[in-house]
Amino acid sequence: MSPDPIVRHARREDVPAILELIRELADYEHELSSVEATEEKLLCTIAFAPSSSTSTVPAADETEPTSSNKPARCLILLSPQGIPAGIALYFYNYSTWRARPGIYLEDLYVKQSERKKGYGKRLLVELAKEVVALKGGRLEWSVLKWNEPSIKFYESIGANMMSEG
Amino acid sequence: MSPDPIVRHARREDVPAILELIRELADYEHELSSVEATEEKLLCTIAFAPSSSTSTVPAADETEPTSSNKPARCLILLSPQGIPAGIALYFYNYSTWRARPGIYLEDLYVKQSERKKGYGKRLLVELAKEVVALKGGRLEWSVLKWNEPSIKFYESIGANMMSEG
Repeated sequence: MSPDPIVRHARREDVPAILELIRELADYEHELSSVEATEEKLLCTIAFAPSSSTSTVPAADETEPTSSNKPARCLILLSPQGIPAGIALYFYNYSTWRARPGIYLEDLYVKQSERKKGYGKRLLVELAKEVVALKGGRLEWSVLKWNEPSIKFYESIGANMMSEG
Repeated sequence: MSPDPIVRHARREDVPAILELIRELADYEHELSSVEATEEKLLCTIAFAPSSSTSTVPAADETEPTSSNKPARCLILLSPQGIPAGIALYFYNYSTWRARPGIYLEDLYVKQSERKKGYGKRLLVELAKEVVALKGGRLEWSVLKWNEPSIKFYESIGANMMSEG
C-alpha cells in the first residue's frame, strides 16, 4: 500500500503552488484568459493556517478568521512525494430556512498527472468533516454542464444534483 | 415627498422581526414547512451590528467578524413608520479566477404590505455599496425559475442572468 497523501489547510507559503493549480484548472475549463488571480491577490483574500501548524486535519479554528476581505479558505493535498497535487477552495455559506451555516466548494482541482489516486475524494471527505464540525447543514458546489468526467465523479461518491436553489 | 426608510445592519434585537419576514418569504415560496429557523438559531448564526450603533449606512466593519458559525449578515429596512419592512440576508463568497471576494444574496424579501415603494431596490443598492467597499468583484443571487415577478424586478434594475457559473 502506498503511503497516504496529506490534506491540510493552505499556508501562505503554498500560494505559488495554489496559483499554478488554479491556472491549470482554468486552462482545463478553457478560461485561462479570465484568470486575474496573482500570488499577491491570493495572499490578500485567503484565510490561511499558520506556517507553524503541524495539524494535518482540517480544523477551521486553526485558520485566520474569515472576513470581508478574506472570505476564502483552501485545503491543499500533498502527495506522498510532497507534491502539491490538489486543492479545494471554499467559503462558508448559509441556509436561511435552516438558519445553519454550510460550505460552498468554489473549486476542486487535482493535477492531471496525479489523477486516479482518489485525491479528489480525499479532499471532499476532509471538507465534509469540516461541515460536520461546524454543525453545518450542507456541502454544496456547482459543476459546468459540459464537464461530464466531473459529473460522473460526483455521482460516484453519492452527491445529489439540485436543479434549483 | 415621503420620508426615507432606514437601511442598516441587523442587530440582535431585530431577530423576532427577521424571523417573521423569513417565515413570510417561505410561505410565498410554498416552503413554510421547511423552515427550521428559530430566534435562537438566528442569534447563533448571523453576524450582527452592535445595538449601540447609530450608523445607518452598511459598513461591514461595524458588524461582528463572520466566522464558521456566523457566516451570515443581514440588512434590515425600516419604513418611515419604523416597521421592519424588508431584509437582505447575505454572505461573502469568492471568485477564484479574480481572486476577489463578492457578496452572495441568499434571500431578499419585502413585506407584502410594504411593496411598490422601492424598498427592494434600496436594499440592493446598499448591498452593492458594500461590494464596492470591500473591493469585491460581484453581487450575485439566484432566483427560482417560477418566480416571474422577482425575475422582472431584477431585470428592471439591470441585473444580468448567468446561466452557468
